[in-house]
Amino acid sequence: MPSMRAVRYHGPGDVRVEEIEEPRCGVGEVKIRPAFVGICGSDLHEYFHGPLTIPRAKIPITLGHEFSGTITEIGAGVTLAKVGDRVAVKPNLVDGGCVACLRGWSNCCRNLGFVGFSGDAGGMSDFVVVREEQAILLPAGFALDLGALVEPLTVAWHAVNRCSLRDARTVLVVGGGPIGLAVLLVLKARRVETVVVAEISVQRRELARTLGATCVIDPQTEDVNSKVRGMTMGMGADVAFECSGAQAGLDTAVTGIRERGTVTIVSLFVERPSVNALGVVLGEKSVMGAVIYEDGDFEAVIEAIWSGKLDPKALITSKIRMEDIVERGFQALVKGKDQHVKILVDIAA
Amino acid sequence: MPSMRAVRYHGPGDVRVEEIEEPRCGVGEVKIRPAFVGICGSDLHEYFHGPLTIPRAKIPITLGHEFSGTITEIGAGVTLAKVGDRVAVKPNLVDGGCVACLRGWSNCCRNLGFVGFSGDAGGMSDFVVVREEQAILLPAGFALDLGALVEPLTVAWHAVNRCSLRDARTVLVVGGGPIGLAVLLVLKARRVETVVVAEISVQRRELARTLGATCVIDPQTEDVNSKVRGMTMGMGADVAFECSGAQAGLDTAVTGIRERGTVTIVSLFVERPSVNALGVVLGEKSVMGAVIYEDGDFEAVIEAIWSGKLDPKALITSKIRMEDIVERGFQALVKGKDQHVKILVDIAA
Repeated sequence: MPSMRAVRYHGPGDVRVEEIEEPRCGVGEVKIRPAFVGICGSDLHEYFHGPLTIPRAKIPITLGHEFSGTITEIGAGVTLAKVGDRVAVKPNLVDGGCVACLRGWSNCCRNLGFVGFSGDAGGMSDFVVVREEQAILLPAGFALDLGALVEPLTVAWHAVNRCSLRDARTVLVVGGGPIGLAVLLVLKARRVETVVVAEISVQRRELARTLGATCVIDPQTEDVNSKVRGMTMGMGADVAFECSGAQAGLDTAVTGIRERGTVTIVSLFVERPSVNALGVVLGEKSVMGAVIYEDGDFEAVIEAIWSGKLDPKALITSKIRMEDIVERGFQALVKGKDQHVKILVDIAA
Repeated sequence: MPSMRAVRYHGPGDVRVEEIEEPRCGVGEVKIRPAFVGICGSDLHEYFHGPLTIPRAKIPITLGHEFSGTITEIGAGVTLAKVGDRVAVKPNLVDGGCVACLRGWSNCCRNLGFVGFSGDAGGMSDFVVVREEQAILLPAGFALDLGALVEPLTVAWHAVNRCSLRDARTVLVVGGGPIGLAVLLVLKARRVETVVVAEISVQRRELARTLGATCVIDPQTEDVNSKVRGMTMGMGADVAFECSGAQAGLDTAVTGIRERGTVTIVSLFVERPSVNALGVVLGEKSVMGAVIYEDGDFEAVIEAIWSGKLDPKALITSKIRMEDIVERGFQALVKGKDQHVKILVDIAA
């Protein structure tokens, strides 16, 4: 097999663009030429604090789990996918036989594999091989850069599905990073009346407003709880999404909801936060988690983008070459946090 | 008005039996001669660490919110209650006009009054005046000592109602104190197949077994999570009730449930616990709170005891005189924790 380029994770602070062997396309598999690959907050976590979810024994692994591309080869037994198909890739590989999968909660699979985190495959490479069912067909003419946004939007889509929006008129989104803004877009697509976004960066607050937030709040200068109560006749938000991964964010979410309201945590906390358990009890509040996505979610998000209900284009703040992954990717997302939301690696550039 | 005895809270470590003026019975009110008054964990919290929920401005207050008694006088405008009625008292006094009450969540009332915590009335006295609707009629022949258990059982009843038991086959109760054991009794009354109780005291574990626990575990010597998974084909409990108020208890509950399971916190945490937020997210678990009770819960518990579905008699481990409240009450519950579950003050003794 010829060699190809790949962005390889060797450990914290050690990501290299290397030449590795091009993967073979096996039974039931398809080979994809990635087009655009998003850098995810979890990639950043791995780069700066990892390995966290990357299994140590599998290092080095190829990064990249938010991506679109074109099928260049199909393996034996592939029935639906065709060479030339433009696809978004669903990176999770479920076991199907674990107790969680058997109950139908495949997103909580206990033996979850994940393209870009475990195994050899990752989107930040010239070619990647995945199972046929992981390649989700995009409609003809669907822009491939938007195709790379399908995965993070699907995380938000699933989180909003998990949390009952029944009777929810006011929703608080804490943290206006890529996931918080994706949650905002999904809530607007679901026609939620009032969406309040709390975010410390002025640029991200402006973007949130552009994307349709009813109200944006800087939690460093304003009391989120007072403001939300002022908007809800003293009640508090019906639902909150914790998308900051920070202690202060969780506190804001728990305080900002009404009695019997729900906080859905979508962020991945590196350290255990404390929780105001007495406040949770006296207000009969719920704090729940949502993770990745279930069958059908990718297709639903693609349809929502295609039909115009979701317009995530503004989330893309830069496109970079594979070779610039560290400096113009990871470093830019941390140092230039205010300037960036979603940075895409343009594989062909 | 003549004077009467009352157990008065003056601050932490300072509870006195004093002579105070007998209360007058106003419009819509009934005067009750208390029979038995339970000592609650929250009374202990107030005695050792308070004032926590007792408003400082109201001190001294008369303690006692778990009690039964007999109506000795009715005020003007009282329509249903009669002198001689034997009743259990519903101690919460809701505002009715706050935003939580207007939504129907009166147990989360923002201006909640509570007999035995705020205002002058408390059950640990020779007479107490409450609103007519707080005096819940007991069936003729209903033992008055069991009547004093109605309130804590109602807390458990409501907590079990709040948490969906749909499809729940295995329930984990963490903490086998009065509330944990009350939750166990309610779960058995609801015919839950398997109830596992984790409790450090051997005496309380034995009592839990007597009361119908399928399995009791000492978390100091056994791994609760492994044991529960062993009983559930690797799955974990469907639902857990956190009744310990301890960090280790919350951790046990969160770890011991399955994916998409729910922990209902019934205990009052004096300090903020930390929570494994990453575990909550990856397992899509829920942590929610339940507090006091709603309309109809008192009547439902009284019916369940009367019909024999709930038999809480074994929870009563001693009856004491009002004058012995500190030594044989608060101190006994802390020092002799293993010997006691529910201590009742016998007002007539």
